[in-house]
Amino acid sequence: MAKDKGPVRPRAETPKGFRDYMGAEVSARKAMLDRIAAVYHRYGFDPLETSAVETVEALGKFLPDVDRPNEGVFAWQDEDKDWLALRYDLTAPLARVAAQYRNDLPSPYRRYAMGPVWRNEKPGPGRFRQFYQCDADTVGSASIAADAEICAMLADTLEEVGIDRGDYLVRVNNRKVLNGVMEVAGILDPADPSKFEQERGIVMRAIDKLDRLGPEGVRALLGEGRKDESGDFTKGAGLSEGQADVVLGFMSARRDTGPDTVARLRELAGGSAIGTEGAQELETIAQLLAAQGYGPDRIVIDPSVVRGLGYYTGPVFEAELTFEITDEKGRPRQFGSVAGGGRYDDLVKRFTGQSVPATGISIGVDRLLAALHAKGRVQADTHGPVVVTVMDRDRMADYQAMATDLRRAGIRAEVYLGNPKNFGNQLKYADKRNSPVAVIQGTDEAARGVVQLKDLFLGAKIAAEASHEEWKSQPAQTEVPRSDLVTEVKRLLGQG
Amino acid sequence: MAKDKGPVRPRAETPKGFRDYMGAEVSARKAMLDRIAAVYHRYGFDPLETSAVETVEALGKFLPDVDRPNEGVFAWQDEDKDWLALRYDLTAPLARVAAQYRNDLPSPYRRYAMGPVWRNEKPGPGRFRQFYQCDADTVGSASIAADAEICAMLADTLEEVGIDRGDYLVRVNNRKVLNGVMEVAGILDPADPSKFEQERGIVMRAIDKLDRLGPEGVRALLGEGRKDESGDFTKGAGLSEGQADVVLGFMSARRDTGPDTVARLRELAGGSAIGTEGAQELETIAQLLAAQGYGPDRIVIDPSVVRGLGYYTGPVFEAELTFEITDEKGRPRQFGSVAGGGRYDDLVKRFTGQSVPATGISIGVDRLLAALHAKGRVQADTHGPVVVTVMDRDRMADYQAMATDLRRAGIRAEVYLGNPKNFGNQLKYADKRNSPVAVIQGTDEAARGVVQLKDLFLGAKIAAEASHEEWKSQPAQTEVPRSDLVTEVKRLLGQG
Repeated sequence: MAKDKGPVRPRAETPKGFRDYMGAEVSARKAMLDRIAAVYHRYGFDPLETSAVETVEALGKFLPDVDRPNEGVFAWQDEDKDWLALRYDLTAPLARVAAQYRNDLPSPYRRYAMGPVWRNEKPGPGRFRQFYQCDADTVGSASIAADAEICAMLADTLEEVGIDRGDYLVRVNNRKVLNGVMEVAGILDPADPSKFEQERGIVMRAIDKLDRLGPEGVRALLGEGRKDESGDFTKGAGLSEGQADVVLGFMSARRDTGPDTVARLRELAGGSAIGTEGAQELETIAQLLAAQGYGPDRIVIDPSVVRGLGYYTGPVFEAELTFEITDEKGRPRQFGSVAGGGRYDDLVKRFTGQSVPATGISIGVDRLLAALHAKGRVQADTHGPVVVTVMDRDRMADYQAMATDLRRAGIRAEVYLGNPKNFGNQLKYADKRNSPVAVIQGTDEAARGVVQLKDLFLGAKIAAEASHEEWKSQPAQTEVPRSDLVTEVKRLLGQG
Repeated sequence: MAKDKGPVRPRAETPKGFRDYMGAEVSARKAMLDRIAAVYHRYGFDPLETSAVETVEALGKFLPDVDRPNEGVFAWQDEDKDWLALRYDLTAPLARVAAQYRNDLPSPYRRYAMGPVWRNEKPGPGRFRQFYQCDADTVGSASIAADAEICAMLADTLEEVGIDRGDYLVRVNNRKVLNGVMEVAGILDPADPSKFEQERGIVMRAIDKLDRLGPEGVRALLGEGRKDESGDFTKGAGLSEGQADVVLGFMSARRDTGPDTVARLRELAGGSAIGTEGAQELETIAQLLAAQGYGPDRIVIDPSVVRGLGYYTGPVFEAELTFEITDEKGRPRQFGSVAGGGRYDDLVKRFTGQSVPATGISIGVDRLLAALHAKGRVQADTHGPVVVTVMDRDRMADYQAMATDLRRAGIRAEVYLGNPKNFGNQLKYADKRNSPVAVIQGTDEAARGVVQLKDLFLGAKIAAEASHEEWKSQPAQTEVPRSDLVTEVKRLLGQG
């Protein structure tokens, strides 16, 4: 029997795979999302905020690589026996909304959404079970101009948040071209779309790994299979050398210009009606974007883009950051993908039976924010509040009045509300808050109608750089009339 | 056996008790939350965003009036057999955070949080299972100045979002005074706090219903019990007439000024040490607020404030909107409560065993937004984007270029992306979007280098007000050079 240990206390822990965001992390994300929303808004997109909870049947099963018993979502059964779940992306709820309100929404319906999504996946380093997405989609437009618009808006968005031109590339491909290549390679039979489905899945995943495995690794996966460094064997698609050549030829079809790439794709997929249609769509996108001035320094046609999700039916997009960062082992590597999307013409049809064309993009908010950090382009508070210290606890009202005066002038300010007995603790607190200025008024100063202002940033600088003699002579602390408090603090903050 | 009906389609429905927010609803809430955050920030509070998911043990059981099997929360079991749940408020996660990061957070820790919370309650009209809260709390300060600050900040916040002075009242009470009265009435024994717990619960709920039931209804609940209009009987606390007089005397102790009310409370609870302490705290709050200029037109001491939650240990606050609205039956009624809070010194102790004083406020976001709507003070987009119509689908790039030019000038604009065949549909779409201006360029206009600008707001006004002759003569549509597009649209939008 267990020993009696008294009342069991709950553990103060974020659940495994979840995390908390504090202070500047919250402000920086909000500042970025506000900028993104401004671009989306300017393009005519309207905000939508759906509930976090959906019925499991409405969500459907579209998560890739699901290896968990409950199919990657957090789900539970309602008292009414309905299965409910947390949304795993913002696209499935949009499809539900587009079907539910189809008689009331404008058509086409341009909407943006930003918020957390949840995945019941094995947590890992940097891999969380709740994370933000930020999506923009156009529902009800079959026009390829809608896809081109999404690509242009994505490029604008990246520049607006602080990714300079040259540091990103929006890459565009088309699932129809991919299907055309599959048809030419003999693993897609238009008369029986479900035939070779498994092989095509393996081929798609192999193409998606080109960056990581290189052409020979991909070739192995297209053929018999591949043994990785750890000795694990991944079964291949079983394609012949000739079939694999067709697929690999497609992956290396990118040329210097959009028109040249499209011409090459027409050659490769020319034997397939769907492939030709896909090449035509890519040509239209390239023309529309070129006419608006989005050249290959920003948006390129790139046949190696696949996108994991199974529901795409036409153009697919990916935004890649092309600058290098240092990975956890100190090696330089490209930052990589921060957004992806494409056309999905069948998601709304699940509900209504009627095909509703749709296309959109999803930005990985945490990854984009990490990129802004890497580039030093994060917008967040640089300093904490002015701290009014408490020398005499009977004069709390006077200290509160000082903070009130500062706030009325738009200055962030607070009174120290811990135990005021130890003054050193008050300055340590101000330090921890990254406070720029401490206001000090003891009985003597109060009698003389003055306050002491301690410039904490200057103080820290002097402490770090100056000798003891210099330190003593530096005016990091000044006495000013109480009536000049606001003016003098403004001056110290550089707002004078 | 059921007939074969083909593939079963998922229902396109928001789950019962949940709702979606669209367009202006999202923008208006965001605008309000941004303003609230600005006030909180100015007071030195830092943002915190915890995960939506917590362990059930960390959340604890603090929901009032729980009549559901799973205790009012949405919960499920993890693969690791841990029970997880969606947070039901923002205070329980704060207590967890304050315990988890106690060595790293500044102390006192002022934080604000805004976001959805979830309650597994029976949905009803206007009662949803996901709703927003917006909280500000100070953890680690035992000072009554922290409570006073929260009240002042709440008043500032209400005025900042658009509730004028005179339209709200922050009411302050103290649980200690209440406990003192219970002690005097003989239903609280300081030597055995658990004794009469049930009776005290009934008394608290009765006081909370004063507005609705009146003094006689409350007296019945304090005594044997009360039969309501439907004939249902609610068991009372079983107090004697004399005991009930003590409690009712407390409820009507509010006087014209804070000092007078405090004096009356001292009389009533004078026989109890805890009651006297509570009256003293109220006096300190009243003094601090008076010194900062928050008079009884904004913040009052009111002994009838109880607040439902069981965890409060000292001052409790409630913000009430005092203007009248018309209820669903056409009767005038006061708008009522939009925020509440108080001091809770034991929530962090659940985790650490150490008492950590804390106080804070929670704003009911949807109710406050409804109040702003009632007052006509909602900030949201007043119009949709400029719509560039498509007369000639081969010149899509030209239309996109027009939208791009407008956007670069900061004007919200979009190209019509539906099927352009029926031009009437394009204007209907512009109308549905509440678009101010439609841009039109057919082959003829393109050849002449001009565009037509249709002023849709003026057009709608003319259609509503003018005779047919006037309608024809009004210049709701003007032709301008393509090169003047941006200038002329700006002029129509009143930005010229």
